[in-house]
Amino acid sequence: MPTADKKRWITALYDAGVREIEVASFVPARLLPQMADAAEVVRHALGLPGLTVMALVPNARGASAALAAGVHKLTIPVSASAAHSLANVRKTREEMIDEVRRIVELRDSSAPGVAIEAGISTAFGCTLQGLVPEDEVIRVAAQCVAAGVGEVGLSDTTGYANPAQVRRLFKRLRAEIGDRSGAAHMHNTRGLGLANCLAAHDEGVRTFDASLGGLGGCPYAPGASGNVVTEDLVFMFEAMGVATGIDIRKLIAARAPLQAGLPGEPVYGMTPEAGLPRGFAQGMMNV
Amino acid sequence: MPTADKKRWITALYDAGVREIEVASFVPARLLPQMADAAEVVRHALGLPGLTVMALVPNARGASAALAAGVHKLTIPVSASAAHSLANVRKTREEMIDEVRRIVELRDSSAPGVAIEAGISTAFGCTLQGLVPEDEVIRVAAQCVAAGVGEVGLSDTTGYANPAQVRRLFKRLRAEIGDRSGAAHMHNTRGLGLANCLAAHDEGVRTFDASLGGLGGCPYAPGASGNVVTEDLVFMFEAMGVATGIDIRKLIAARAPLQAGLPGEPVYGMTPEAGLPRGFAQGMMNV
Repeated sequence: MPTADKKRWITALYDAGVREIEVASFVPARLLPQMADAAEVVRHALGLPGLTVMALVPNARGASAALAAGVHKLTIPVSASAAHSLANVRKTREEMIDEVRRIVELRDSSAPGVAIEAGISTAFGCTLQGLVPEDEVIRVAAQCVAAGVGEVGLSDTTGYANPAQVRRLFKRLRAEIGDRSGAAHMHNTRGLGLANCLAAHDEGVRTFDASLGGLGGCPYAPGASGNVVTEDLVFMFEAMGVATGIDIRKLIAARAPLQAGLPGEPVYGMTPEAGLPRGFAQGMMNV
Repeated sequence: MPTADKKRWITALYDAGVREIEVASFVPARLLPQMADAAEVVRHALGLPGLTVMALVPNARGASAALAAGVHKLTIPVSASAAHSLANVRKTREEMIDEVRRIVELRDSSAPGVAIEAGISTAFGCTLQGLVPEDEVIRVAAQCVAAGVGEVGLSDTTGYANPAQVRRLFKRLRAEIGDRSGAAHMHNTRGLGLANCLAAHDEGVRTFDASLGGLGGCPYAPGASGNVVTEDLVFMFEAMGVATGIDIRKLIAARAPLQAGLPGEPVYGMTPEAGLPRGFAQGMMNV
């Protein structure tokens, strides 16, 4: 996607009311050339008042670049699956916890105001190794907190999660790390994305990762497909009376710059296709 | 769909473990010619031991034909929306309750062993009139019970429902009619189908209407699109450890006769497309 389209897309999401966006990944440009403009994209996003500008960083080198670019928040993918850890970041899980510690030290010494979250990848199962024991997920989450991370979320990288498991694991996460319990990052690979978000919401989760048009996946998790569709997620919560702060009509309009920047890429979303229900009014509009 | 394919399809669902199937609608052949073979389809289904053979009937004339064909169960669509009632069955809601009473009398006099359920259409909103007051939904449900119906379910004909509404309305339904509270019939029009089924399950609902490949809609509710996909619904429950009695691999195989009978028709389903998770084992297979 051309840099100009990324900027337009971020602005459109901001205009719809989104106030935290993972705008880029600071990863080696030779592996993921589509992220080579990360610093420029961050610079643009920093111009939008009140927006928390977040970037994904897989290691200290990426964190250093992201901090230099001025991000407000770092998100680190830490695999619960041993096999996915090697495939995704070329480190064992133990080596990755050491890396998290280095990122925290870097932040402490150079930009103490920056928040750090870890997202536990393959927390609900792994396409490479299959089952991921829940004890290991919780142990890795606790290790992240011990390493100095402010917030730990659980990611269903592979679309394996089910609502009973989501409830069980977020309950255990909260019991283990309390208020440092973070976002639910669900994929819709088997159609359960929204049901899993509902289950997480039932357990007190209030931060949800999603992507416009359901874009996404993971280049190093075979078979991983798109994230939960932001439009459908916002529709679900707003219809339930849970205020998201997002104007769903403007959110749907933000698909235009996305499609302009990625012509031919499939853009998903049931609510944008079906349209809003007759007479639908958002809580925020009624207030 | 040719009659022979319908029969093959029903047998394939039966072989997968499905034990209640709405096999046909007894409606005027001049309006819905695709249902002209209803009696023959019922005859085939009656040959499958242990299967509850159900048919939709919009009026006493249809009920009479369905009872003559030997069905085990009748399902009557009764609209909560005044506008949908006129469009779907050409009767006011009051006239439709009279019709329900006539169907019950017919059953009592000619086939007392046959069960009758009512499905309250547009219970969560209507594409014709918009909002449908919850008091009216509950009132119509209570009138169905007073008319002699054994079970009353709630149908989201238009795909307007959200999980909070589903919980609220099924709770009210159970408070009003107790154990006569029946199935959740959800559509996936805005992607919330499974989340709504999960919400209904939380409220104690144990019967779910769904269609293979998400086929369906309503010819008289503009904009109504497909039902919840049976394959994804069964995957969700089985993954949660809720035994459905259905073998999901055989269920996915039952798409073949469906596709043979309706070539070119889009057949939906995220789980069939993505495949089952690595190492996925159903409860029923582990027992």
